[in-house]
Amino acid sequence: MQDKNNRWILAAQCASRLGTVDVVTRFLKEQRCYITEQQSFDDRLSERFFIRTEFRPEDETFDADAFQSAFAERAADFAMSFELTAPETRIPVVIMVSKADHCLNDLLYRYRIGQLPIDIRAIVSNHPDLAPLAEWHGIPYRYLPITPQTKPEQEAQVWEEIEAAGAELVILARYMQVLSSSMCQKLTGKAINIHHSLLPGFKGARPYHQAYEKGVKLVGATAHYINDDLDEGPIITQGVEPVSHTDYPEDLVAKGRDVECLTLARAVTLHVERRVFLHANRTVVFDR
Amino acid sequence: MQDKNNRWILAAQCASRLGTVDVVTRFLKEQRCYITEQQSFDDRLSERFFIRTEFRPEDETFDADAFQSAFAERAADFAMSFELTAPETRIPVVIMVSKADHCLNDLLYRYRIGQLPIDIRAIVSNHPDLAPLAEWHGIPYRYLPITPQTKPEQEAQVWEEIEAAGAELVILARYMQVLSSSMCQKLTGKAINIHHSLLPGFKGARPYHQAYEKGVKLVGATAHYINDDLDEGPIITQGVEPVSHTDYPEDLVAKGRDVECLTLARAVTLHVERRVFLHANRTVVFDR
Amino acid sequence: MQDKNNRWILAAQCASRLGTVDVVTRFLKEQRCYITEQQSFDDRLSERFFIRTEFRPEDETFDADAFQSAFAERAADFAMSFELTAPETRIPVVIMVSKADHCLNDLLYRYRIGQLPIDIRAIVSNHPDLAPLAEWHGIPYRYLPITPQTKPEQEAQVWEEIEAAGAELVILARYMQVLSSSMCQKLTGKAINIHHSLLPGFKGARPYHQAYEKGVKLVGATAHYINDDLDEGPIITQGVEPVSHTDYPEDLVAKGRDVECLTLARAVTLHVERRVFLHANRTVVFDR
Amino acid sequence: MQDKNNRWILAAQCASRLGTVDVVTRFLKEQRCYITEQQSFDDRLSERFFIRTEFRPEDETFDADAFQSAFAERAADFAMSFELTAPETRIPVVIMVSKADHCLNDLLYRYRIGQLPIDIRAIVSNHPDLAPLAEWHGIPYRYLPITPQTKPEQEAQVWEEIEAAGAELVILARYMQVLSSSMCQKLTGKAINIHHSLLPGFKGARPYHQAYEKGVKLVGATAHYINDDLDEGPIITQGVEPVSHTDYPEDLVAKGRDVECLTLARAVTLHVERRVFLHANRTVVFDR
Repeated sequence: MQDKNNRWILAAQCASRLGTVDVVTRFLKEQRCYITEQQSFDDRLSERFFIRTEFRPEDETFDADAFQSAFAERAADFAMSFELTAPETRIPVVIMVSKADHCLNDLLYRYRIGQLPIDIRAIVSNHPDLAPLAEWHGIPYRYLPITPQTKPEQEAQVWEEIEAAGAELVILARYMQVLSSSMCQKLTGKAINIHHSLLPGFKGARPYHQAYEKGVKLVGATAHYINDDLDEGPIITQGVEPVSHTDYPEDLVAKGRDVECLTLARAVTLHVERRVFLHANRTVVFDR
Repeated sequence: MQDKNNRWILAAQCASRLGTVDVVTRFLKEQRCYITEQQSFDDRLSERFFIRTEFRPEDETFDADAFQSAFAERAADFAMSFELTAPETRIPVVIMVSKADHCLNDLLYRYRIGQLPIDIRAIVSNHPDLAPLAEWHGIPYRYLPITPQTKPEQEAQVWEEIEAAGAELVILARYMQVLSSSMCQKLTGKAINIHHSLLPGFKGARPYHQAYEKGVKLVGATAHYINDDLDEGPIITQGVEPVSHTDYPEDLVAKGRDVECLTLARAVTLHVERRVFLHANRTVVFDR
Repeated sequence: MQDKNNRWILAAQCASRLGTVDVVTRFLKEQRCYITEQQSFDDRLSERFFIRTEFRPEDETFDADAFQSAFAERAADFAMSFELTAPETRIPVVIMVSKADHCLNDLLYRYRIGQLPIDIRAIVSNHPDLAPLAEWHGIPYRYLPITPQTKPEQEAQVWEEIEAAGAELVILARYMQVLSSSMCQKLTGKAINIHHSLLPGFKGARPYHQAYEKGVKLVGATAHYINDDLDEGPIITQGVEPVSHTDYPEDLVAKGRDVECLTLARAVTLHVERRVFLHANRTVVFDR
Repeated sequence: MQDKNNRWILAAQCASRLGTVDVVTRFLKEQRCYITEQQSFDDRLSERFFIRTEFRPEDETFDADAFQSAFAERAADFAMSFELTAPETRIPVVIMVSKADHCLNDLLYRYRIGQLPIDIRAIVSNHPDLAPLAEWHGIPYRYLPITPQTKPEQEAQVWEEIEAAGAELVILARYMQVLSSSMCQKLTGKAINIHHSLLPGFKGARPYHQAYEKGVKLVGATAHYINDDLDEGPIITQGVEPVSHTDYPEDLVAKGRDVECLTLARAVTLHVERRVFLHANRTVVFDR
C-alpha cells in the first residue's frame, strides 16, 4: 500500500483556455508523479480555471525546486499561477483573539492532537484573559491592548508579530476589533475570519438579540477571507444549528458558539489542505 | 390502548400571571378530559404565556359547546384567548400559486395521502399553467390574472374566493405577486408564505444570482406568516441545504426548491396541528 | 459564455498506475476537448483509479464514434474501462413500485419539471394501485401480480419489460418484493434500491416499530445498488431526519418517507450524471 | 423582568390516569409557584405519563423541604415518582476516560465556561495519559489501571471513587473498557455512554474500518444510558456527519470525534436539565 503521508499538493489557476488540465497532468506524468486525487473546475461565468492535484513522486530523487522551475515555464504559457506544497507542511499561523475563547480552545485542541497541519507561532490579543490557555499549550501570547487613539500603533505591532512569526495565515478566532482598511488589504486572502450568520441577516450591534426579537429558527456561522469589507469577504464555508422560542439571546449565543467552532475549524482545514481558491470575491472549494 | 384519533386540542395564550397553567389543567380535570400531551411556555422578555394541550374526553357525553362556554368564563379572568380544535378537524384552505409548481405538487401529494389534515377548497392563481395539476387532484382552480392596473380588482376577487371557500388558512405556495398592504392586513396570522433565505440576506431581484455571485455555501428557505411586511413576517420554520461553487444560479434555484417544499410543508403541519402561537412579531412553536 | 448544455461526460476506471490521469487528459487535449470539470481519485487501499471528466468539444465536427474508437486504444494499455455520455442523454429507465407511492410521486414530479435527465419507459408493479398516477404522467404501467408460486414467471415478465424498454437503469422505488438471486445478479450495478436505515440497524419485519421500541432519535434512508444481498448492496447516498419520543411508529414511517424520497432522488441524480463508480462492494461518488 | 436564574425543576412520572397533570399544576398554584415552562407526555403504547415543570416561587419564603413533603402526599395517590431540583444545582459528576481525549476536552471546556451545570469531582482512567489535562483544569485524576485479572478489584476502586465523589452522574467519555454486568446494574440510569453509530450497524472490533469497507456516506454517534447491555442502553440523543469515499478509516475516526463530542455534550446537558425520563428501555426527552 502507498504511503499516505507522501502527499504533495499542486494548486493552480488561470483564465479558461484549451489545455489547462493537460499542461498540469502531462507534466506530472513526465516527472513520474502519481496523481492520487485531482479536482478541476472551470467557472463558465467568470471563465476561470482552477485545479488541485495531490500526487506522490514515484522516484526518491524528486527535487521540488527543479519541479517548480520546470513547471513555471509551462505555466507561463497559460499565465497560470500555482503553488506547490510539500508533504507534512505545517504553515506558520498567528491566531488573533479577544476575550471569547471557544474558537481558540477548539483550534488548540485540534492542533494538539495533530488534526490541524499548522504551526501556531503566536496568539495575539487585545486582552490578557486568554494567556493561561495559550501558556498551557506552550504557545507565545502577545497582549497588545488597543484604544481608539492607539489603533494605528497597535495594528503596527500586530503586523510586526505576524511578520516576525513568518505567518502565512492569520486566524481571527473571535477577534472583536474592526481592522483598518489598510490592515485588511495586507491580509487579503491570508486571513480567515468567523462571524455569525443569521437568517435574515442582521446588521449592527447585538445580532443575536436582534435574531431573538425576530424569532429565528436557525443560527449560523460563516467563515470567510478578510478583504476590505471585514464581514463580507469571500465565503469559505458556512454552518447552521436549529434553535427555538425557548432560546433566549444568551442561548442563541451559546448555540452560535458551537457552530462557530466547527465552521472555523473546517475553514482552516480546507485552507491548509489547499482546497480553497480565491478569485475576485468568490471562492472555489474542492471539498472532500 | 387509547384511541389515538380522539385527540382534541386546546391552545391558549395570555399575559403572564400566577395560575395560568392551573386554570387550564384544573378545568380539564373537572371535565374529565385526559391530557395526552401538553406544552406551556412563558416568555420572560415579553411576559406572555402560551399553552397547547392535547386531550381525550373520558366520557362519551363530552359536549364541545358546553366545554367552550364554561372555559370562556374561567379564561376571562386571565384575559386568555383560546381555541378548541376537534379531532379529525380539517381546516379549510386556499392555496395561491403562480407558475412554479414544486410546492403545490408537494402539498397536493401530502394532502392526497392524508398526511396534511386540511381541506383544500380551491387553488387560486394569476396564471393558468397549473390547472391540470389541480384538476388531477380534483380541486377547483381559479385563474385570476393580474396586471398593475387590475391589481385592486384581482385582489378583491382573490378575497372573494377566500371568503367563499371559508378558508381559515391561505398558503402562498410560490405566489409571485406582492400583496397590497390591505390584503396583507386581512391575512395577518392566517396566511403562510415561503421564500428563499440566504446567508447573507440578499434584497431585490434574482436573489439566487446574487447568492451565486457572493459564493454562498448554503441555501435556505423561511416559512412565515404574512404581515404588512410581506417577506418579513413572523418566522414559523426554516431549512437549509449545502451548495458549492459547482452550483450555478439555476442549480441554486433547483436546490432551493427542495428546501422550500420541505419547509413549507413543515410550517403548514405545525400550523394545522395548532403548534404555532403568534404574538407581536414572533412565534412560539411547540414543535414535536 | 459557454453553452452549458454542450456537456459530454467521460467516466473511467482501472487499476492504479502511473499515467492514468494523463492518458485521459492528453487525449482530450489532442481531440480539442475543453475540460470544464474533472475529478479523479485513487483509492490507496484497493489500489484502484477513478476519473470523471465533463468536457466540451471545441470543434463542431466532433465525432463521438471516432472519439471512442481512438480512446479505446489508449485505454487498452491501462485495461481501463470507460463510458462516454453525450449531452442531453436521457437514459432509459424502468421504475418498480408496489403500493407506496411517495418515492414514485417524487420521481415523477422531478421528471416532469425536467430535473431528472432520464426517460421513464415504464412503471412495473405487483399491484394495480398506482396506475392512475402513472397514467396522469402519461407513462405505461405494467401490473404484474406475484404470488410465491408465480414468482419465477413474474420475474421473467418483469425482465421482459426491462429488456423491451431498453432500460439501462431500474429504480426500485419501494418495490416490496425480495428479488431472486438470479434477478439480483442480472441487475447488478444497474438497479438502485431505497430502504430505511436506522441506528442501530434493525433486521426483520416492521423496522420502524422496532426503532420506536428502541427509542431512536434519528430515522434514515440508504440508496444503494442491488447486488446478491438485496438490502446490503454498495451504498450510493444516505440521509437522516431527527425524530422524538412523540413520534409513534406511524410517525416514524411518515418522516421516513421524506428521507426516502430525497435520498432516492439524490442517488438517481448522481447515477445519471455518471458520478457514481462501482468497484467491488463500494462506490466512489464524485458528488457536487 | 423575571430572574431567569430562580428556576426550580419538578420532574415526575407515573402510570397514565386522569388527573396526572392537575395534581402537579394545582399544587404548584397552591404553593404560589409560577410555571415558566412545562411539558408533559403520555405514551399511549406503554400507558405511562411524564411531566417536567420549570417554576419560580412567587414568595421569598419558599421552603423546598416543606414543598417536597407536601407534594409527596399528593403524588402517593398516583404512585408518582418525582424529583425536585433547586436553581443553580450542579450535580456531582465523575468522568471516566481511557486515552482518547476529544470528549473529555470538550466537556472540560464547556464546564470551564459555565455552560454545563455540573460539578466534576474526579476523572477516573485506566491510563495515566490524560492527567495533565485534568490537572490544568484543577480536577483530581485517578489512575486505576486494569488487567483481565484485576478487573473486579479495579471496578471496586472505580465504584469507591464514584461513591466518595457522591457522584449522581457518571460520564463515560470514551472509556474503552467493557463494564461488568454488576457494574452496569449499579450505574443503570446514572451513567451516560457515547459510542459510534453507523449505518448499517457494525458489530465487533474496528467499526470505522468496517464502515469504510462498506462505503458508508454518514458517520454517527449515539449517547445513551448504561444498562446491562453496554452499547444498547436507552438512547438519549444521536448525531451524524456526512463522509465520502475520500475518507479513509482514520478520517472516519476523525469525523466521528466531532460528532461524538457534540452528541455527548448534548446528552449531558439534557440529563442535567432533567429533560430525560427513563422508562423500561426507552427515554422521553423534553428537548428544547
